[in-house]
Amino acid sequence: MSNKKIEPVIPGGFQDFPPEEMIARQKMFESIQRTYENFGFVPLDTSTIEYAEVLLGEGGETDKQVYHVASTNKQGEVDFDTSLLTLRYDLTVPLARFVAANIDKPKFTLPFKRYQLGKVFRGEKPQAGRYREFVQFDADIVGTPSMLADTEIINMMIEALTSLGLKRFIIKINNRKILNGLAELVGIEGTKEVPKQDRIKFMMRILDKLGKVGWDEVTFELTRRPDNDFDPTPSLLPDRLADIRNFLDVQGGDYEKLNSLTRIFKGVDIALCGISELREILDNLKALKVDPSKYCLDLSIARGLDYYTGPVVETELLDLPQIGSVMSGGRFDGLVSRFSEREVPATGASIGVDRLFAAMKELGLVDLVPSTAQVLVTNLDSRQRAHYLSIAGRLRSAGIKTELYFGSRLLLRDQIGYANLKRIPIVIIIGQDEIEKGGMQIKDMNARKQVFVSKEEFIGKVQSILG
Amino acid sequence: MSNKKIEPVIPGGFQDFPPEEMIARQKMFESIQRTYENFGFVPLDTSTIEYAEVLLGEGGETDKQVYHVASTNKQGEVDFDTSLLTLRYDLTVPLARFVAANIDKPKFTLPFKRYQLGKVFRGEKPQAGRYREFVQFDADIVGTPSMLADTEIINMMIEALTSLGLKRFIIKINNRKILNGLAELVGIEGTKEVPKQDRIKFMMRILDKLGKVGWDEVTFELTRRPDNDFDPTPSLLPDRLADIRNFLDVQGGDYEKLNSLTRIFKGVDIALCGISELREILDNLKALKVDPSKYCLDLSIARGLDYYTGPVVETELLDLPQIGSVMSGGRFDGLVSRFSEREVPATGASIGVDRLFAAMKELGLVDLVPSTAQVLVTNLDSRQRAHYLSIAGRLRSAGIKTELYFGSRLLLRDQIGYANLKRIPIVIIIGQDEIEKGGMQIKDMNARKQVFVSKEEFIGKVQSILG
Repeated sequence: MSNKKIEPVIPGGFQDFPPEEMIARQKMFESIQRTYENFGFVPLDTSTIEYAEVLLGEGGETDKQVYHVASTNKQGEVDFDTSLLTLRYDLTVPLARFVAANIDKPKFTLPFKRYQLGKVFRGEKPQAGRYREFVQFDADIVGTPSMLADTEIINMMIEALTSLGLKRFIIKINNRKILNGLAELVGIEGTKEVPKQDRIKFMMRILDKLGKVGWDEVTFELTRRPDNDFDPTPSLLPDRLADIRNFLDVQGGDYEKLNSLTRIFKGVDIALCGISELREILDNLKALKVDPSKYCLDLSIARGLDYYTGPVVETELLDLPQIGSVMSGGRFDGLVSRFSEREVPATGASIGVDRLFAAMKELGLVDLVPSTAQVLVTNLDSRQRAHYLSIAGRLRSAGIKTELYFGSRLLLRDQIGYANLKRIPIVIIIGQDEIEKGGMQIKDMNARKQVFVSKEEFIGKVQSILG
Repeated sequence: MSNKKIEPVIPGGFQDFPPEEMIARQKMFESIQRTYENFGFVPLDTSTIEYAEVLLGEGGETDKQVYHVASTNKQGEVDFDTSLLTLRYDLTVPLARFVAANIDKPKFTLPFKRYQLGKVFRGEKPQAGRYREFVQFDADIVGTPSMLADTEIINMMIEALTSLGLKRFIIKINNRKILNGLAELVGIEGTKEVPKQDRIKFMMRILDKLGKVGWDEVTFELTRRPDNDFDPTPSLLPDRLADIRNFLDVQGGDYEKLNSLTRIFKGVDIALCGISELREILDNLKALKVDPSKYCLDLSIARGLDYYTGPVVETELLDLPQIGSVMSGGRFDGLVSRFSEREVPATGASIGVDRLFAAMKELGLVDLVPSTAQVLVTNLDSRQRAHYLSIAGRLRSAGIKTELYFGSRLLLRDQIGYANLKRIPIVIIIGQDEIEKGGMQIKDMNARKQVFVSKEEFIGKVQSILG
């Protein structure tokens, strides 16, 4: 082996999670999993590596930068073909691929309510707050057009976030069909160069700036003629601006908003359908007695316009709005269209675990404990090792998480310091004295108390301290 | 979007795990995790992608074929450089990298007892039973040369496998130092072209064939002159064959074996050191009252010769020996040598989750249940949806995993059939009758009994059926 040492680093945009973070993350995962299972969702795991055409479609079109993967051939050369293997960039395309592959199997039933926790990869240039590998925790309901499913996703996500200790958040709900209706109302058309969706998206971005730039500037942007064939300007006729204003002026409680929208979109079927879907979701959430401060309609939500087909949701943490949405989703009825002629409706959402975990740390909701051990058995006398092992073994058999001290420090003080650093709540001390008396000292680190107990009673004593 | 449909398949050597498998796998993961934590191990997660030189060392030397990873540049071309990114092929090199990077930080303490569950990747040609992506569940103790650590790994692995329901398995223990001693005893030397380790490995392979080919053939293979400079033959002098015979003749119980070895290796310090380490492990396992049928010495174990430095272990499933070792490991005191001049002793083992899961399925230890839901609330009357939602909501609030039927079948028979297929043990039925009577029918699917209960009592009834 060469003597030149290699620097022990990971590439930018990638992360390690040391124990104190992983212990907290695992708690978060378990809590979300418990909520998902509480709603009858079942787990799925899919391959991390997918064929490029599965992920990117025939033309390779996606706005996510994907990682390509290649192995080496016998000559040690990289056997590389971009048409072959790629790392998944989300968990939704793999879900679609899985459903398309299994939908005709006799054991597969719809609706399919699955959750998936997994790492996804984006080949982006690393930058602050953007990761190239991150974890998503998705839940989707495949195979029903019913708004019960969309309701359930919202209900469940509120429960999942609440179970993590989050209190001040709101799930914002919109419906893609209303935005489509708006485009119809104001007469936006697609061209060969700029599809309709892109013009709508561009219009929404203009409307988003209203607070900052004012109505005059927005009017100019909405109505100006295109600079060239690729300019996505909506180029509205001036007499359509009143519709836009009416839309932007929609205010009040959620039901009031729906009533105003019904008036504005009179005769625009697609929008009326979207309004009726939102009404059904609101009614359902009410029947479920979901805390009404946790959700609201927000007509400015315009996520995934080329993808979602019905209700869409985003989540704002009220104390950290700048961190962005920690849970997002919506209905995508074209789920398997890349693979099959079948119509398979689907709705779901994804928790961005890394962003959420960062937010929870900032909000003081994460307790970084470096160990899950409940007892440290000290190791003070090398002649007593067999005895220490047997004490540790008995604790473990009783289901008590036990660490036997393996370090090089032989002083009691140092071993107690180790337990303190690791926040292990109980220390068992067995020196010559304790051996002679047939027992051990049990130190309760939180109460700062120490008692002698016999070998017969110590399990019970430890259990009573742990509560 | 194009109309040409893409085939929904994954590349060979990769796997999906549908819900019935994932539910069982998650149980397996949780069980192993519980055991690891019971022994005071803490979780670590590391980046899936590592720099090539971190994984492969300076010369790029490894016998594992790695996957290289590349993103596309602005021109949409794959920006590929083999010196850059690679997918990890195990969890040990990332552990070494993590330890080397953190060992001097004030919060990092040794010994570091970490577990890690993660996917690893090998760019091999796909073949039966070989996966290109698979899951490992490792546990390692870094920072102590004490045989207590090696004992703990063996003890813990026996507990972990037992907790999964495995009964007939044995952990085979050897010590790399004894094989080194054997090489010294019989006079094996390395050359520029063939390092000593390779000659020892080759010799072990020859000895392994003894049962099949007989002593004459083995004698010939051990003593023949090399064909060329790259021939790894051990080329023993004929007068050394007696030592080999003595070594192969070592028999009896574990302590008897150690006594025989002590005689054979008189004066060979490295082997005597290995023998003494094994004796210490056996003594410790005895003190821990570990079931002696679950472990034994096996001097033929020769795993990871260029890697391990002390005790090594392999696991044989007695009813499925052909499946190979489901848990393997050993001591590797050169852990961080690639990154640092420091000596950091380490010992650990890895459970090959996919192989183990396949074995457990074959042994009938896996119950493939398609859902974890405990209750199915039927959905028979669309006017009662709000009521169904509220019943499902109350069950979930009580921590009962509840699915509300979302499917398209409206007949009770079909919805009960759905619960049956999904093995959901309780079905709640609310039709017009039940609404009028202010309650619901609760059907216990296993007992094939159905009772009417009021809205006030149903949670208690469900809980009592679930037990």
